Amino acid sequence: MQRPEFSTMCTQSADWFMQLQNQICTALENADGKAKFKEDNWTREEGGGGKTRVIQNGNILEKGGVNFSEVWGKLPAFMAGRESVLETDLFYATGISIVLHPKSPMQPIIHMNTRYFETSSGKHWFGGGIDLTPHYINPDNARFFHTELKKVCDQFSTAYYPKFKNWADDYFFIPHRNETRGIGGIFFDNLSETADYSKQQRFNFVQAVGSAFVPIYIAILENNKSLAFGSREEQWQKLRRGRYVEFNLVYDKGTRFGLETNGRIESILMSLPPKANWEYAHVPEAGSAEQSTQSLLVKGFDWAS
Amino acid sequence: MQRPEFSTMCTQSADWFMQLQNQICTALENADGKAKFKEDNWTREEGGGGKTRVIQNGNILEKGGVNFSEVWGKLPAFMAGRESVLETDLFYATGISIVLHPKSPMQPIIHMNTRYFETSSGKHWFGGGIDLTPHYINPDNARFFHTELKKVCDQFSTAYYPKFKNWADDYFFIPHRNETRGIGGIFFDNLSETADYSKQQRFNFVQAVGSAFVPIYIAILENNKSLAFGSREEQWQKLRRGRYVEFNLVYDKGTRFGLETNGRIESILMSLPPKANWEYAHVPEAGSAEQSTQSLLVKGFDWAS
Repeated sequence: MQRPEFSTMCTQSADWFMQLQNQICTALENADGKAKFKEDNWTREEGGGGKTRVIQNGNILEKGGVNFSEVWGKLPAFMAGRESVLETDLFYATGISIVLHPKSPMQPIIHMNTRYFETSSGKHWFGGGIDLTPHYINPDNARFFHTELKKVCDQFSTAYYPKFKNWADDYFFIPHRNETRGIGGIFFDNLSETADYSKQQRFNFVQAVGSAFVPIYIAILENNKSLAFGSREEQWQKLRRGRYVEFNLVYDKGTRFGLETNGRIESILMSLPPKANWEYAHVPEAGSAEQSTQSLLVKGFDWAS
Repeated sequence: MQRPEFSTMCTQSADWFMQLQNQICTALENADGKAKFKEDNWTREEGGGGKTRVIQNGNILEKGGVNFSEVWGKLPAFMAGRESVLETDLFYATGISIVLHPKSPMQPIIHMNTRYFETSSGKHWFGGGIDLTPHYINPDNARFFHTELKKVCDQFSTAYYPKFKNWADDYFFIPHRNETRGIGGIFFDNLSETADYSKQQRFNFVQAVGSAFVPIYIAILENNKSLAFGSREEQWQKLRRGRYVEFNLVYDKGTRFGLETNGRIESILMSLPPKANWEYAHVPEAGSAEQSTQSLLVKGFDWAS
């Protein structure tokens, strides 16, 4: 299907997400110093396609993906009614989605997604966020991470950070474990043009979030690069990655959307860790670093003040 | 909640499932020769409970669970309407559920579940099945496995095996990978009393399936015990286990039922493998044993003739 006529924001945001993909991949390759991204271009029969870039077995990154996609076509049936979109609408969606699994258990998993969505009847919105899943929660890193996200948000509205931080806490939660996936971050959706915010302002915010990814994550990697670890930490890392798998396969809306709409499976599941373990009824030792991390996997923890 | 009055089949089947749990655990411990099952008894606030038995780090079994449960109470809302059960019904359910992850990649993962369900308005049915997930499909094992299941079925009805074999093919299918979880087996549900089959006959069949588990699996373990393997086979095993995780977390009804009804999480997720890997866009080498296995992960393969 040829791309139907949508607003200029489609091309504008897609171009920007593609540039962002290039910028992030270059920065990550430089930081890693060993592995390179492998690119797979794919097209979607119903319209559009993407560029999946995956890095594996690096010095720092054990496995990760930085994916760009731009797709359009008939609206999936289950979306009709949501945000007043019409069943007869065509949709356009573009975005970038990142998950990085570092080799060292002392380095956190990071996830970012930013996206733009539009329908032929004129609805549109931005969504996205960045969140961090440390295997070991380092309070200094956590405070740095949240403070930097708050700075990005505060440039646009002081209401953004508290709202989007809580949204991330609620979204990245694993009910069956009664724990958060990590230390959260920010999560937002349905940011459309309103009396207070123009479409361009929303886009500026999404660009600011996207641009913040590299400096924030590189600083954290740099900060933890000399931390020693052994088999105990690696074992804990694999158990935490198991929880990451549980969240992504059971709850993550993007993953389930992809599985249910027959998306490109290897691009969707690039988020899964290279190695994960499950141990029956594992309980961290009292007073251990693992127990300390476990105790901080709760909603509502204020890292930014 | 005290157990309400249900038919005598509840006690009869629960007693039998508990005996079967003992028998299977003893046989597996004897076969393994090293590890022992650890038992956790749990109770369910809303009524009933279970005995979870898990074995880890054995000579043969790397991780496995043999779980018994007997629960009752108000019917979960999402079940109302299914099989003409009423929203106001109380339910009773008992069963045994087994997943074994062997250490050797040359040995198959096995799963068995048998269960009895009853409602206060008098509906009742049996369900269950056994299926095999080899990391490497050995056609002799596969034929033996299916032929033995067919023998069990044929004692009751020659219509059983073809029907329940197809049902397993359909049930243990991973749409997003377009492959079956393993080589299937038999799967059945809603076996209630009919003009042709008494409740006792249905129970006899379920008992025959349960009793077949040990001789079938022990024979397969015995058959493969001298097969050598190295890191290549272990790596493939972990990738196949990753698919097992995908099936269980995304599609398995028992797992999702457990997660959605706030079941005992460690008992539900005992089915997950000790170690699983994900590699981006892995394709087995042409002409390899891994590719041969991959090519056999299809529905409708006739192993029993």
